[in-house]
Amino acid sequence: MKLKNRNFITMDEWKREELEFLIGNAMKLKKIGYKSKPLKDKIIAMVFFNPSLRTRTSLQAGIYKLGALAIDLSIGQGVWELEHKEGIIMDGKAAEHVKDAAQVLSKYCDAIAVRKFPDMKNWGEDKKDAVINGFAKYSDVPVINLEGAMEHPCQALADMMTIKEHFKNLKRKKLLLAWTYHPKSLPMAVPNSIALASSKFGMDVSIAFPPEFKLDSSVLKKIKDNCLLNKSNLEIFNNQEDAYKNADVIYAKSWGSINFYGNPEQEMKLKQNLKTWIVDSKKMKLTNNAKFMHCLPIRRNIEATDGVIDGKDSIIYQQAENRMHTQNSLLTELIS
Amino acid sequence: MKLKNRNFITMDEWKREELEFLIGNAMKLKKIGYKSKPLKDKIIAMVFFNPSLRTRTSLQAGIYKLGALAIDLSIGQGVWELEHKEGIIMDGKAAEHVKDAAQVLSKYCDAIAVRKFPDMKNWGEDKKDAVINGFAKYSDVPVINLEGAMEHPCQALADMMTIKEHFKNLKRKKLLLAWTYHPKSLPMAVPNSIALASSKFGMDVSIAFPPEFKLDSSVLKKIKDNCLLNKSNLEIFNNQEDAYKNADVIYAKSWGSINFYGNPEQEMKLKQNLKTWIVDSKKMKLTNNAKFMHCLPIRRNIEATDGVIDGKDSIIYQQAENRMHTQNSLLTELIS
Amino acid sequence: MKLKNRNFITMDEWKREELEFLIGNAMKLKKIGYKSKPLKDKIIAMVFFNPSLRTRTSLQAGIYKLGALAIDLSIGQGVWELEHKEGIIMDGKAAEHVKDAAQVLSKYCDAIAVRKFPDMKNWGEDKKDAVINGFAKYSDVPVINLEGAMEHPCQALADMMTIKEHFKNLKRKKLLLAWTYHPKSLPMAVPNSIALASSKFGMDVSIAFPPEFKLDSSVLKKIKDNCLLNKSNLEIFNNQEDAYKNADVIYAKSWGSINFYGNPEQEMKLKQNLKTWIVDSKKMKLTNNAKFMHCLPIRRNIEATDGVIDGKDSIIYQQAENRMHTQNSLLTELIS
Repeated sequence: MKLKNRNFITMDEWKREELEFLIGNAMKLKKIGYKSKPLKDKIIAMVFFNPSLRTRTSLQAGIYKLGALAIDLSIGQGVWELEHKEGIIMDGKAAEHVKDAAQVLSKYCDAIAVRKFPDMKNWGEDKKDAVINGFAKYSDVPVINLEGAMEHPCQALADMMTIKEHFKNLKRKKLLLAWTYHPKSLPMAVPNSIALASSKFGMDVSIAFPPEFKLDSSVLKKIKDNCLLNKSNLEIFNNQEDAYKNADVIYAKSWGSINFYGNPEQEMKLKQNLKTWIVDSKKMKLTNNAKFMHCLPIRRNIEATDGVIDGKDSIIYQQAENRMHTQNSLLTELIS
Repeated sequence: MKLKNRNFITMDEWKREELEFLIGNAMKLKKIGYKSKPLKDKIIAMVFFNPSLRTRTSLQAGIYKLGALAIDLSIGQGVWELEHKEGIIMDGKAAEHVKDAAQVLSKYCDAIAVRKFPDMKNWGEDKKDAVINGFAKYSDVPVINLEGAMEHPCQALADMMTIKEHFKNLKRKKLLLAWTYHPKSLPMAVPNSIALASSKFGMDVSIAFPPEFKLDSSVLKKIKDNCLLNKSNLEIFNNQEDAYKNADVIYAKSWGSINFYGNPEQEMKLKQNLKTWIVDSKKMKLTNNAKFMHCLPIRRNIEATDGVIDGKDSIIYQQAENRMHTQNSLLTELIS
Repeated sequence: MKLKNRNFITMDEWKREELEFLIGNAMKLKKIGYKSKPLKDKIIAMVFFNPSLRTRTSLQAGIYKLGALAIDLSIGQGVWELEHKEGIIMDGKAAEHVKDAAQVLSKYCDAIAVRKFPDMKNWGEDKKDAVINGFAKYSDVPVINLEGAMEHPCQALADMMTIKEHFKNLKRKKLLLAWTYHPKSLPMAVPNSIALASSKFGMDVSIAFPPEFKLDSSVLKKIKDNCLLNKSNLEIFNNQEDAYKNADVIYAKSWGSINFYGNPEQEMKLKQNLKTWIVDSKKMKLTNNAKFMHCLPIRRNIEATDGVIDGKDSIIYQQAENRMHTQNSLLTELIS
């Protein structure tokens, strides 16, 4: 298995057995703790274009536990704005090009982790993840995606570890990715990554959303391919009740509509009638005693009720904790 | 003495002998330096809702000296805005609830230190310190108050250490908490904490302020109780000259008026006639060769003159230095 | 050679042999790596009034490699605004005085590094570098200039190391400091420092700029003195073609006009006709196979073309890397 020096940007580029190997190591780290320091004297740059609590803290804490240093760089807030278009005449707001930032950071650091949310204006542009891929193209060191427009692979890795902690065998276990109402138009990276990961791991996958909130068709195609390969079920629902039946995992998440991309006011109008898309105890009762999952941050009593979030089947804090262990397992393979 | 795993939020929850024990250890650390690393591999999250120079730097530096890592998180500046109301429907600005942030940070860190200034709109709300107490309620690890609406206990601990460095016996030593003019309405945390701490330690306490700037009555009650218990004097002055007489310590500080809370323009009008409430050499001459103290940041020639601030009796930088040693002493007891 | 505990603020205060000694040590560090930890347990505060990518990251990474801790403080963004005028009545925006910040930080840290760009309103005021010099005046520990109005000595030190990596003997080697067009009015610190440093090291120095963009006369005087002392050539050009001839190093940089200081709109009008002041392949062909240098961040296809920036003679990333090694060499001498 060749993991050293690779990037971690999409689920696609990583095989199931590679991801399972990372999760296995993460479970060991969680169990035995961090006495050895496999990344002693290593330096990882975290480049944040957007806010972060879990990612920032789990990386800083985890990297420290591995014996290394995390450097926290927040673009536009102490660090120069970055341009990503190739060949452009840079007479705009950005003072520096990703091309240069990536090569410069490569001189000081052993890995570069980048969070760059989509601009939510133009899906065709956003889905290229030009900034993260720009870093990957020009960096001499591994680049880790901390959430772009298309994927949030570190989240999905932690999620799959968490699911495996509860279900020894994932075959015929049904994960429902449940769209929820939210007062803002959110990115699709988390729903994409969990659907890609759970289908890759052989789970039955259901996705429930109002008709306007279909995921990107290229992503759906890959989810379908994963299910075909694993002989597992893929079901799409445009209503909630049917979708919850027999689910073993409810993964709640809001995301924006590609139909209304760049048009949040119109999306918001539509969403006024969609406030019933919330995870509550009544819906959870339709499931097979499902575990409740969410990547956080979660809007309480909007995406799910306090009762569900704080209930005995909620494993959200376990997901958060596993962010650290899976990232640590990943980093150790990439750069130790 | 049971100090392990406790929170450090108010003076009230800590006994005089416990605080004196912490100060004693801080004095040792200051004297012998930081060769042992009692917090090796520990991680402390610092959650700042407001600016900080001393607190941020003294914690980062001190925690490093103890062998541990401080993670610097600034809310609303790289980290999601946090909601603190229980049971609320989160359709506002905040993307995450303190309940979740506290439990998530507990997974990565061994202690959480929080600075959350009052909003300065509604004293009844502010005095609950809902954010800091929310962290304390939901965190699995000790929570340290880095300044809320009611108290700044880390400052008071450093202040009492500094006073004890100058006065072996605090009995009959008079500390004057001297209100000063300031162009802004400031929180009451520092005056509350130093008055609570100095009275708890048995000093005679005087407080001088224009009549509209009375401290919260629940705090005054506790100060009075402390003085009764210690058979020490408590005096309230609405003029300056009498107050300075025989003082051994002048603790200068501006704070806002509860009468005009949420109404800074009206308070400012009133304050136009209060610019003589400044610590100057003339007033210092009325004292018993008093030491001059201030928590910093200080507005020079507004709260006190350059002459006093830079004078031989000023011990403000010693206070600042002792922030580090007392915090280190505290952290070592709480989480080593 | 007495380097311990000194400040590093201007080229003037440092002798050529001292700088060469620092560069020699930096070359060793670059070659043999960072196994020894000469700054174990030391703490360096980085005070940023302005954005930074290279400086922030090279310092944090480098300081970590030396075994020490860098504390990242961003003024006005988590840290109080600072006043620098002496004796002022502080009733404005700034909550704290440099005098106090410097003395407080000295209690926690072993060195203070400060970036404070000019305000670009009044050159007479800016050129005093009052904030950086204020830190130097009041700090008890060494102060390092991370770029002020007049100089960026850490950049110049890295630049001279980079030049020395390519040219064993600097005598009769010609460095052209080439002004370029830029959509903003930029500080003069980098051009000042590289011209001062290269002339101090005995290179032939040429400076090309449109007539309105003359450097400060006090700086030009020092450059001239350096050239006289070293019996090297100083040439000033107001056109580009002649200037490039026989150059061994092209150092591209834009800077603002002292004539139009505080008047960026008027400067911008003038600059509309100066967009040909860009480094391109055609101009590079006029040189003696010159190396292309820039301090970064660079605006691509504005200051230089992609072809030049990414070309085989571009040594910009080497400059960036050498920032770390020279700073490490410097810090080791100042505070180990």
